[in-house]
Amino acid sequence: MTKNIIEPLDEAGCWELLEGHEFGRLAFSVANEPDIVPLNFCARDQKVYFRTGSGSKLLAMTINQKVAFEFDLVEDGIAKSVIIYGTAREMDDESEREFFESLPLRPWVATHKYHYLEITPREIHGRLFHLGELEED
Amino acid sequence: MTKNIIEPLDEAGCWELLEGHEFGRLAFSVANEPDIVPLNFCARDQKVYFRTGSGSKLLAMTINQKVAFEFDLVEDGIAKSVIIYGTAREMDDESEREFFESLPLRPWVATHKYHYLEITPREIHGRLFHLGELEED
Repeated sequence: MTKNIIEPLDEAGCWELLEGHEFGRLAFSVANEPDIVPLNFCARDQKVYFRTGSGSKLLAMTINQKVAFEFDLVEDGIAKSVIIYGTAREMDDESEREFFESLPLRPWVATHKYHYLEITPREIHGRLFHLGELEED
Repeated sequence: MTKNIIEPLDEAGCWELLEGHEFGRLAFSVANEPDIVPLNFCARDQKVYFRTGSGSKLLAMTINQKVAFEFDLVEDGIAKSVIIYGTAREMDDESEREFFESLPLRPWVATHKYHYLEITPREIHGRLFHLGELEED
């Protein structure tokens, strides 16, 4: 018998995991050139929020709003990974900015990151990996 | 005076960090749709090696070899992040496969992952983030 060493995590489980954490990675792409950055995030009401400065990341997501967001965690011999495919957009409305500022979301370091972005998921996938176990026949 | 709360990590420092670790994330893109996966890697002689199965990740990198690879680590109030931009290709030559099999590289879980890939960097960037410190005037 083959053991299930990789198991799906359901959507509610994915959001529960994201809502309890704040450090993930974002992939984006311009002209089919992939890029990836680590960032602090906050998940609320099935969306993901993050800050950014005025750099190439913001420019890239203005050109191509499609993003992939990833969170992972390894504990007690189990790795958990959540991947979101969606679109990112800047929140520039005053009421949106007020909402953003109410979130418990801090930048990694205290630099000035004035742009607030929201990821609206199109798909969310989660998996549990049982580490170090051997497949059995 | 403004403190340097983000500092560059030089290329030798980036490789030293990668060579001491094995868990990172890979971003790739097909038709300008970014994707991201967590994976085990092995860094040797300024290249990065990883395994994959016969799935969508392998297909994507056959269509578009451009990848972004990221590693990060948080310890003692300092976060370190390394990002590589480069190209991925499958190692299908017998001698290449022998080299790959000599690497101390295991898949996360013991599933069958028979495809061996090599990332050749075009650029490598590393940064140190001093976490939780405030910018001072």
